[in-house]
Amino acid sequence: MNITNQKIEISLAPDLKIGGENIILMLGPCSVESYAQTHAIARLIHQLGLRVIRGGAFKPRTSPDSFQGLGEEGLKILRKVADEFDLLVVSEALGVEQLPLVAEYVDIIQIGSRNMQHYPLLWAVGELDKPILLKRGFMSTVDEWLAAADHIASRGNQKIILCERGIRTFETSTRNTLDTNSIAHLKINSPFPVMGDPSHATGRTDLVIPAARAALAAGADGLLVEIHPKPEEALSDGVQSLNLEQAKDLVVQTTRLAEAMRRGIA
Amino acid sequence: MNITNQKIEISLAPDLKIGGENIILMLGPCSVESYAQTHAIARLIHQLGLRVIRGGAFKPRTSPDSFQGLGEEGLKILRKVADEFDLLVVSEALGVEQLPLVAEYVDIIQIGSRNMQHYPLLWAVGELDKPILLKRGFMSTVDEWLAAADHIASRGNQKIILCERGIRTFETSTRNTLDTNSIAHLKINSPFPVMGDPSHATGRTDLVIPAARAALAAGADGLLVEIHPKPEEALSDGVQSLNLEQAKDLVVQTTRLAEAMRRGIA
Amino acid sequence: MNITNQKIEISLAPDLKIGGENIILMLGPCSVESYAQTHAIARLIHQLGLRVIRGGAFKPRTSPDSFQGLGEEGLKILRKVADEFDLLVVSEALGVEQLPLVAEYVDIIQIGSRNMQHYPLLWAVGELDKPILLKRGFMSTVDEWLAAADHIASRGNQKIILCERGIRTFETSTRNTLDTNSIAHLKINSPFPVMGDPSHATGRTDLVIPAARAALAAGADGLLVEIHPKPEEALSDGVQSLNLEQAKDLVVQTTRLAEAMRRGIA
Amino acid sequence: MNITNQKIEISLAPDLKIGGENIILMLGPCSVESYAQTHAIARLIHQLGLRVIRGGAFKPRTSPDSFQGLGEEGLKILRKVADEFDLLVVSEALGVEQLPLVAEYVDIIQIGSRNMQHYPLLWAVGELDKPILLKRGFMSTVDEWLAAADHIASRGNQKIILCERGIRTFETSTRNTLDTNSIAHLKINSPFPVMGDPSHATGRTDLVIPAARAALAAGADGLLVEIHPKPEEALSDGVQSLNLEQAKDLVVQTTRLAEAMRRGIA
Repeated sequence: MNITNQKIEISLAPDLKIGGENIILMLGPCSVESYAQTHAIARLIHQLGLRVIRGGAFKPRTSPDSFQGLGEEGLKILRKVADEFDLLVVSEALGVEQLPLVAEYVDIIQIGSRNMQHYPLLWAVGELDKPILLKRGFMSTVDEWLAAADHIASRGNQKIILCERGIRTFETSTRNTLDTNSIAHLKINSPFPVMGDPSHATGRTDLVIPAARAALAAGADGLLVEIHPKPEEALSDGVQSLNLEQAKDLVVQTTRLAEAMRRGIA
Repeated sequence: MNITNQKIEISLAPDLKIGGENIILMLGPCSVESYAQTHAIARLIHQLGLRVIRGGAFKPRTSPDSFQGLGEEGLKILRKVADEFDLLVVSEALGVEQLPLVAEYVDIIQIGSRNMQHYPLLWAVGELDKPILLKRGFMSTVDEWLAAADHIASRGNQKIILCERGIRTFETSTRNTLDTNSIAHLKINSPFPVMGDPSHATGRTDLVIPAARAALAAGADGLLVEIHPKPEEALSDGVQSLNLEQAKDLVVQTTRLAEAMRRGIA
Repeated sequence: MNITNQKIEISLAPDLKIGGENIILMLGPCSVESYAQTHAIARLIHQLGLRVIRGGAFKPRTSPDSFQGLGEEGLKILRKVADEFDLLVVSEALGVEQLPLVAEYVDIIQIGSRNMQHYPLLWAVGELDKPILLKRGFMSTVDEWLAAADHIASRGNQKIILCERGIRTFETSTRNTLDTNSIAHLKINSPFPVMGDPSHATGRTDLVIPAARAALAAGADGLLVEIHPKPEEALSDGVQSLNLEQAKDLVVQTTRLAEAMRRGIA
Repeated sequence: MNITNQKIEISLAPDLKIGGENIILMLGPCSVESYAQTHAIARLIHQLGLRVIRGGAFKPRTSPDSFQGLGEEGLKILRKVADEFDLLVVSEALGVEQLPLVAEYVDIIQIGSRNMQHYPLLWAVGELDKPILLKRGFMSTVDEWLAAADHIASRGNQKIILCERGIRTFETSTRNTLDTNSIAHLKINSPFPVMGDPSHATGRTDLVIPAARAALAAGADGLLVEIHPKPEEALSDGVQSLNLEQAKDLVVQTTRLAEAMRRGIA
């Protein structure tokens, strides 16, 4: 084991930490589709007093014939709107060969669920000095997830944020099953900040806010939530994206719950 | 389908409903072991301002050589201490042949997870005029769970309380996986009150309160929680039982969260 | 543990054992629908040189509005055609209260998958002197399955035939996942004869014969297979029933495989 | 969809095809550990009349502190002993960046279970003119598996061999659950040859041969089996490796079954 024993707070910006008192909301589109779409989202994020925008530029898709993201163009859009509104960017690197490009534009590098055990990528981000948002493999145990974090840590980088995004079970009424037990367990028994992703964990707009509340109540230090100005026109994941009004409601509801937990929202 | 379309509030006592504003906490031992044990628990429940005691008299156990409960003696103890402290009793009926006996002592009849698809028992409780707490089969889908409720309703009884108690998945760090998605889904899309059982869903004392919070935040109308004066001496499920101090903390924490959800605790 | 350590061969008739050299094919309809249907099937079974007919009289159905079987009338039909062709009958008892009735008509009593942990029923069949076909719970581990057998054995009856009928997994292209590992494991490491049910394990006619071959090759002592003169008109499970021509092909193919395994078919 | 509709036979050598009459046994060590170990195995493979050796050079391991394989040195050993005994080599490429190296030494390139959805690697092997052995993700559906094959085919390479290696389920008595249904299903309904890996699918030496028989009986065109001269000293996966005597027995038993299926072994 190369993982530290001590609780880690990770500095995202000089005035923003994850793993401490504040719960960090990271909102944004599944895929970056255009400047206009991303700008509208970023403006809302800024208005809501939040600090991080999420968005996909390279999209891992089950079918090779689906939209694969805008690539570098998507990263440029993310960076531009983020700078305009003083936001941080979280986005996924799909492979080792893309990592230098992604690292140039992005503040927090996401490892996707399908790549949680792609060890060459874990080793490569282990040599960076950036926070890594490590999504749980949808088929991985908590122990395997920590072992993946250990692969990253073995190369020197301990700035690891774990993100529960739902696991595959027999249940089919939701896209995945949000494992709030794992959030509670890792918050207590691992050194890392833990987030929840209620969008992928439910796959249904009507359940995103309740699942966000559940993740938060289980102890999550952050939430990763897909929002879109017009979910019905989204190129990917529209059925699980909140629209901008719903995004405001998310902030209202999580703020109330956070206060009950003696925490804040940022 | 024999299930009503309208949201159901179930009256548990003249002044106590489930499915309305108040979240109902049902605390008690896994197994009724003795009068003294049950009395100590009932007194605490009363002191905390709660109204329902749970407890097992007939225990379905994986091995035939494990403690199978006190049987009718256990029911008598439950009834006696409940009457002393003006509490309601929830307890499980294991089979059709036991039902008359259990119904004599118990206010809310529990159908256990292993019996969720034992149809003769569903039909039999469908002919009673008592609330039925229907636990989810630990590997049953939400649709199968609702179909089980439909078996009960088909005989006339719509007083059904659904209870999510964790499902079986590949994850082994917890006894089961609490499916908070199903709580959120059924609260929105079914007519029935929905509860959560954080004790069976985690199997670990350190996770019971966080899981209780998660269930509540997902929208649960009630919680079923195992408590014991001396968990380390319990004849069953000691590793997941809260002691009496922890039970108090559970009430404090859930009260705060309930207020953030604009609800109360009873 | 109340289970014997020694390999058990169970005598089904004076000249027919399960757990020995011969692999026993138990064919028949999902539900007994009429005398004519059952008679046609029984005649074919007899012509194929087989000795056991399966058929459901009391059907556990997910929805209360589905066909629930002919009940006692179904048992009478089964017994009548079985006697005409000198066959043995295997059929399910759904609950303790039905058991005396079922035991009157049936040679081998089946405990269904949903009832594998309905302990009162296990205790009741444990007091009979008849072979019990114990289906694996679709959500039960091998250890829990053996513990269920232990519940039966604890009351004195060791004539237990285990039947793997597929488990619930994330895979949806088949109704269940046939766990051939469990057949191999129990054949080697338990005292009981082990069967496979390729009909429920696949839920698709095109896969029933390959799955039957796989179960047999893994070491099964018997197969339970649904057949129907006109599967497209069956009142239940038509999509997984073989027609009578396919039933003949099943016997041809399994006979060849059995010979390669130095066994026979009966 | 970029996948052809027609059944594919893949030429492995001028006189060796997979997907046709012969069932191809691919035996070898989990990890290449030394020249002596690999040479002993290759000699046995040759003596048994088989044509392919499997072996790992780059090993994806859950923990970063486990043995990660000999790397290029392992590939050199494999090539050397394979050439001495006129065998073909199958070995895994862990990432895009390794692919040129692996392709230089190896005849059939394996994509491991953890990488089944690592799309950059799928695209890269899609541009090669070599057979690709695509292992099923241990928690991937059949549809996702075919979509992964589609990613390869989308770049031009249709020489894809599917390999079922067991899926993750709730069952813990075996390492994974061999999904023989998927072998039967894909053999009938996909264009590709299908193999089974009874070593990973069971994780237990005592079950490897029965599981090999089951895969073959379900319709497999090949088997991938771990063998080792001294399993108890293996640096990885010793508990599921056959020793050389057991390897001979595997060939004897599968040859008999193959004949019953009107096929041969190569």
